[in-house]
Amino acid sequence: MKVFISTYPFGQVDPLPLEILKKHNITFFQNPYNRKLTPQETKEFANEIDILIAGTEDLTPLVETSSKLKMISRVGIGLDSVPLELCKQKGIVVSYTPDAVTPAVVEFTIGLMLNGLRMITFADREIRRGNWTRPVGKRLGECVVGIIGVGRVGMGVARSLVGFFPKKILVNDIINIDTKIQELLKLGLNVVYSTKEEIYQNSDVISLHIPLTQDTKNLITSKEFSQMKKKPLFINTSRGEIVNEIDLYFALKNELLSGACIDVYSKEPYSGRLLELENITLTQHMGSCSVDCRIAMETEASEAVIQFIQGKQLKNIVTL
Amino acid sequence: MKVFISTYPFGQVDPLPLEILKKHNITFFQNPYNRKLTPQETKEFANEIDILIAGTEDLTPLVETSSKLKMISRVGIGLDSVPLELCKQKGIVVSYTPDAVTPAVVEFTIGLMLNGLRMITFADREIRRGNWTRPVGKRLGECVVGIIGVGRVGMGVARSLVGFFPKKILVNDIINIDTKIQELLKLGLNVVYSTKEEIYQNSDVISLHIPLTQDTKNLITSKEFSQMKKKPLFINTSRGEIVNEIDLYFALKNELLSGACIDVYSKEPYSGRLLELENITLTQHMGSCSVDCRIAMETEASEAVIQFIQGKQLKNIVTL
Repeated sequence: MKVFISTYPFGQVDPLPLEILKKHNITFFQNPYNRKLTPQETKEFANEIDILIAGTEDLTPLVETSSKLKMISRVGIGLDSVPLELCKQKGIVVSYTPDAVTPAVVEFTIGLMLNGLRMITFADREIRRGNWTRPVGKRLGECVVGIIGVGRVGMGVARSLVGFFPKKILVNDIINIDTKIQELLKLGLNVVYSTKEEIYQNSDVISLHIPLTQDTKNLITSKEFSQMKKKPLFINTSRGEIVNEIDLYFALKNELLSGACIDVYSKEPYSGRLLELENITLTQHMGSCSVDCRIAMETEASEAVIQFIQGKQLKNIVTL
Repeated sequence: MKVFISTYPFGQVDPLPLEILKKHNITFFQNPYNRKLTPQETKEFANEIDILIAGTEDLTPLVETSSKLKMISRVGIGLDSVPLELCKQKGIVVSYTPDAVTPAVVEFTIGLMLNGLRMITFADREIRRGNWTRPVGKRLGECVVGIIGVGRVGMGVARSLVGFFPKKILVNDIINIDTKIQELLKLGLNVVYSTKEEIYQNSDVISLHIPLTQDTKNLITSKEFSQMKKKPLFINTSRGEIVNEIDLYFALKNELLSGACIDVYSKEPYSGRLLELENITLTQHMGSCSVDCRIAMETEASEAVIQFIQGKQLKNIVTL
């Protein structure tokens, strides 16, 4: 069984995930480019490998080409990069690590929220070019926070707001979240279920925590930005293609938004026009990039490979 | 009674604080330079004014020169800029607004904490210069957080950590804080009273929340940085002169610290050598810069002036 680790970095924060493979005498090789692979590049390795430990790179060309791939172990939570239907047809087993990544994304999101509200990265840029402008922002405690998607991450974000007493938290999901709302109310949070339109209209902060699917692709366009009446801070740590980047550019340029914090892009590494703007914090798909979560995710992904080879039951198998 | 508003900005976020003065027919004029005054500049106005609404500018030359100053209404919490002993001798009444400013500083501090741990400003700088380096940081949930000074702000910071479950919170103060520790324990936080040395040695994050006094000036020097064994993130939102800036520069340069987030400086506006470094987030004495707290602080400062003129009791009078 030959394993290809296409995600990068892997085994850098801690060698444990690689040691697990070595201990079981697994033959493996790692991404030779030390960056996210393009869809075409993933294909290069298609017929050499039995098992793939994957990041967020688009795996469609690889899976289409592959004749012997048996398993994909995704390091992380999103599955938009994996052609699940095709995997099912070809009998390729898919696992992922949704729990390991959540706490890191949650904290990162709150970090972006406070950062964007108080313009911390802007202030750092300003002082480094010799300006002392002391921007005045909003306090989370005086904000209505809209959370679209109350799965693991969205729920974690809501829970972590407990120390800040936001004025109100508006939550939306496509499934019933009554139990989750009850839990948040018990924490003392002022939570109200809302439609997406109500969230656009009434929030000072809007944060997306939904997967990329056919239904969510291009969900946020100029139409949605024009409904955001309170010039909110807009945050995306989920997937880039959920937001129309050109429309976001003009929403920021025309100050329909007070600001944005964007961690994910339709093409990564990102090098588009958002880089021209001052009222945005741009990070590098780093939601999962905390030491403990990298170790947990990578270790779980390696362990899933071992369990698969040994014919054991997988902890987080993906079923269509 | 002629009032001089030396602090800047004032009445910008909301005109209410100026309207209060106008409504009571108070003659006032504002800082003509639209920036923090130097000590010498404050002196220019010394013999014209009866009452001063002040920021953090050093008021010693003004108070020394003044022949008719009767009251200082400080917008904010620190009193290191006010020569209190001299005010007492000259019969000048001093008031301040410690409660109004606290929530804004607390949130700003947590924002810097998450920012520094996950290197958000660094990532924003990197992507804007064409790099995609995805720095891996620490999660607050895996950190020991050391808080030096558990007054209004330090206590608020500890309380706001409740949504993040830090591994441990080490707290230090020069006065007895048993009751405060009991309150934090009840919130479910793992809080332990510690000496400053224990905090230096065992913390992943260290945050200062103490006033600038003769005892705290230059409290943190190379000696203290060398005791910080876990290469912590170092945060200062209190006063610049508590930390030796040259020693901080070398602690960051030599990676005794993993990073720092600095909002306050020995000379403001700041233009020193810390600007050369990448492992630091530099903000612009913005702890109080949230809309609601600016309004509350400025309104309280104006109201204190009215109360003083009307001979009423002041809400937050400073007694030596």
